[in-house]
Amino acid sequence: MNGKNIVASTYVEVSEKSLQAVNPATGLTLEGDFFKASERLVDEALRAATTAFYTYRNLNKDVKAAFLNAIADEIGNLGEELVNRASAESGLPLARLQGELGRTTGQLRLFANVVAEGSWVDAIIDTALPERQPLPRADIRRMLIPIGPVVVFGASNFPLAFSVAGGDTASALASGCPVVVKAHPAHYGTSALVGGAIIRAAEKTGMPKGVFSLLYDDGYNIGAALVQHPLTKAVTFTGSFKGGMALVNLAQQREQPIPVFAEMGSINPVIFLPQTIEKQAEELAKKYAGSITLGAGQFCTNPGLLLAVQSPGLDKFKTVLKEAIAAVPSATMLTEGIAGNYGKLSSAITNEVGVEVIAVSDLNNNELKNQSKAKIAQVSAADFIRNPKLREEIFGPYSLLVVADDVAELEKAIDVLEGQLTVTLMAEKQELQHYQELVNKLTDKTGRIILNGVPTGVEVCAAMQHGGPFPATNDSRFTSVGSTAINRFARPLAYQDWEQDLLPDELKDGNPLGIFRTINQKLTKSHE
Amino acid sequence: MNGKNIVASTYVEVSEKSLQAVNPATGLTLEGDFFKASERLVDEALRAATTAFYTYRNLNKDVKAAFLNAIADEIGNLGEELVNRASAESGLPLARLQGELGRTTGQLRLFANVVAEGSWVDAIIDTALPERQPLPRADIRRMLIPIGPVVVFGASNFPLAFSVAGGDTASALASGCPVVVKAHPAHYGTSALVGGAIIRAAEKTGMPKGVFSLLYDDGYNIGAALVQHPLTKAVTFTGSFKGGMALVNLAQQREQPIPVFAEMGSINPVIFLPQTIEKQAEELAKKYAGSITLGAGQFCTNPGLLLAVQSPGLDKFKTVLKEAIAAVPSATMLTEGIAGNYGKLSSAITNEVGVEVIAVSDLNNNELKNQSKAKIAQVSAADFIRNPKLREEIFGPYSLLVVADDVAELEKAIDVLEGQLTVTLMAEKQELQHYQELVNKLTDKTGRIILNGVPTGVEVCAAMQHGGPFPATNDSRFTSVGSTAINRFARPLAYQDWEQDLLPDELKDGNPLGIFRTINQKLTKSHE
Repeated sequence: MNGKNIVASTYVEVSEKSLQAVNPATGLTLEGDFFKASERLVDEALRAATTAFYTYRNLNKDVKAAFLNAIADEIGNLGEELVNRASAESGLPLARLQGELGRTTGQLRLFANVVAEGSWVDAIIDTALPERQPLPRADIRRMLIPIGPVVVFGASNFPLAFSVAGGDTASALASGCPVVVKAHPAHYGTSALVGGAIIRAAEKTGMPKGVFSLLYDDGYNIGAALVQHPLTKAVTFTGSFKGGMALVNLAQQREQPIPVFAEMGSINPVIFLPQTIEKQAEELAKKYAGSITLGAGQFCTNPGLLLAVQSPGLDKFKTVLKEAIAAVPSATMLTEGIAGNYGKLSSAITNEVGVEVIAVSDLNNNELKNQSKAKIAQVSAADFIRNPKLREEIFGPYSLLVVADDVAELEKAIDVLEGQLTVTLMAEKQELQHYQELVNKLTDKTGRIILNGVPTGVEVCAAMQHGGPFPATNDSRFTSVGSTAINRFARPLAYQDWEQDLLPDELKDGNPLGIFRTINQKLTKSHE
Repeated sequence: MNGKNIVASTYVEVSEKSLQAVNPATGLTLEGDFFKASERLVDEALRAATTAFYTYRNLNKDVKAAFLNAIADEIGNLGEELVNRASAESGLPLARLQGELGRTTGQLRLFANVVAEGSWVDAIIDTALPERQPLPRADIRRMLIPIGPVVVFGASNFPLAFSVAGGDTASALASGCPVVVKAHPAHYGTSALVGGAIIRAAEKTGMPKGVFSLLYDDGYNIGAALVQHPLTKAVTFTGSFKGGMALVNLAQQREQPIPVFAEMGSINPVIFLPQTIEKQAEELAKKYAGSITLGAGQFCTNPGLLLAVQSPGLDKFKTVLKEAIAAVPSATMLTEGIAGNYGKLSSAITNEVGVEVIAVSDLNNNELKNQSKAKIAQVSAADFIRNPKLREEIFGPYSLLVVADDVAELEKAIDVLEGQLTVTLMAEKQELQHYQELVNKLTDKTGRIILNGVPTGVEVCAAMQHGGPFPATNDSRFTSVGSTAINRFARPLAYQDWEQDLLPDELKDGNPLGIFRTINQKLTKSHE
């Protein structure tokens, strides 16, 4: 395994300080030396990315698509080696990582298709009206163009799908932007394997070298230098509120502010309407015991808040939930820091007024380190409304059940919620019709609203929205999952009275690329 | 003329302090008393806007379109009264304001059409795949929804088209967002007339009252309070860099940061390639004398920078430009402050190393106040490259001619340019082909690139992009002119496994609105 930093698709000489990866389940050091990057490497990576940008952005769309598909191929070829390493570094089970590998290559191929199809550039053409009175109209043609080098921060909780070649990298490369990745310190080896796959793919498909760089650091300096570098044009991040806002603030303080897309987590409220819980108490309890503890609860869409009205059905729900949670074995968390934080916060929460634990995992893997035990706490809606602390995310297999006296009080509890990635309603159709105003209000607090499902499991598709009102993300107008994530890295450019031959193909008469375009206010694929 | 503040479509009681409008050409006070708003009115306006939002956003698209058309009708009905008042307050000629009135009502009707057509919500539907392995896919449907109350700052230089019912208000209302306008202090009376038109239109079409408010202030307090109010969800501004960045920073410091769309001006470089200036020196000089002095140069797309290579053709260009500029009469500027600033900056520029004045207006309207005299300065490319001060905007009928020794030096001068609203190339086809790399680089610095035209005159159409890289605007991904300006006020919301009957019409099976939608990756208007 080559743990050297990658600058412009090339392994660079080794610095003095080497870093090691740790298996969180055993605490043991894993094979491989990785090397702390320097500010000089940050500068070299961004300069190379900028040079590459002028070539890469103008490559034919099919060539860019071939690059993305080649990355998927190379990552797929790593197969077991990659999955085993990711599992050893993250503590996540092999089966989960096999699924995540499929998701990662699937994402790359999805963006390859988006680029190859080509209509994502949203071409709009208004042809000249030379005879118009009082003034003629010029010929104006507009399309999306890439913004330049993108810095991607790998996320700890998806070592494949949200990391070196995850959705951020795939969508940035698809848009025509070079990428510089800051590897997450929780999975150096996984990062190195995937980084190697990308440079092989870049070489095979003849990409300019600066299209990809990968830098390691166990602290914050390299990340900060990447965000502050004047040639960086955008930043993506998935992680904590504190980490995300630190990057947002750094980016805002630059001489030239740049967009940061920070997905900062969410408590993903689930609202159980009365009839539904009355009828399906047992089934819902089992379903949610599974969703809350999936992947040790380390999902940004983990349901951290359950809201319901007191009733015999809810009592039954609690009884079944208690049994189901008790039977969930403890699980290895991603890092010592995350496990320590979970232990601390999930214990301290019972010091808050009115909070009591109603379910806790009974099965401990004593032989393993960094274990999290699933836990459900309960509080009255009145106490919940009074205490903003109860609305903060506790990252891990934890959820808080808020019990209201009636639906009116439930609505008041909903009123105090901040922006969320998801809101889920467990409701019968008549209930939804009855509470239309509540639903209307909820749409204002979330990026995705789910009916009778669970928020975990974020489908990678065109219609997905993974990004909600602040503080779930810092810009709810964009998504970090799904094909429209490509729009984060593009801006419109209008050509006025430009020469046909010199226009980009996307805007030429005759539509040589055969894409959808809006011509004089009509959407068409016409070649005329 | 009713100069009371409008809160929730209602004139509110008068505060103690009254404000007067001034005719900048005469310095005389104009008819009408206007009233400084208070923080209490800011709060009332935003609360009313928030309440109205839940009703307004859910109105049928044809009803919203009718409201926009009714505003256009009411403003059109004001006719002469409005144009006369706007001219008296701004010093702009009647003919220009007649044109601007047409543009303003045209914009409102354009957005009415966008809303009524309906496809702008970018509906994307991925239907369920219950049999998919290893996991089924849920039904996911996403569309753009409005973000909430928008604060619009009126701009001084377009008292109609970028003010109370200008493009920002029209696009925000079109998206489904209520609007609170801060009237520009340079045209209180124009603002009051247009505000009255909007509330008549709102009443005639049965809008919720909070959909529109209009507040006056002669200072910064009300503007700051509007940006800081927790219920404000977005802000639009057109004006100076300093003013724009002050609002951006206020918005960023909020507990919940919100987007500000600040169009902060630009020097709009015009690059004359050698063959072109050789062949068309005289014609180009006349064309640009007109563009630079149009509207006393008070356009965000005013060509403030001309770049060329020294040559006999350029000498001829300068001779003709000098004559043409000399013949341009002085013109009344929008305000005493703007005129004072223009006089100061256009004089001080000659203190910079190597800068000399090569053309100046010879005709002064001595009987009028706040007059601006057109002026062209010249500097070598070498001095231009060394001195960042020469890249700052001087708002008014001023332009700086940068003379390079050769095209290589011209390219170096282009390298130091910051982001721009427009870049214009005056070039023959063969020249463009020869300098492809230069063109490639230029596209990276601008939102609109023009061939053999002038940047002034921003067409309001679907393909227009009026927004460029920083510091031209603070977010180059959006435009403030043209139909895609509506996207500034919307964010995606995804519905997962939602009930058909309870989905918005835009996302229902059968496509009841007949809009374009992307269904399982195919763009279609199908009703199936």
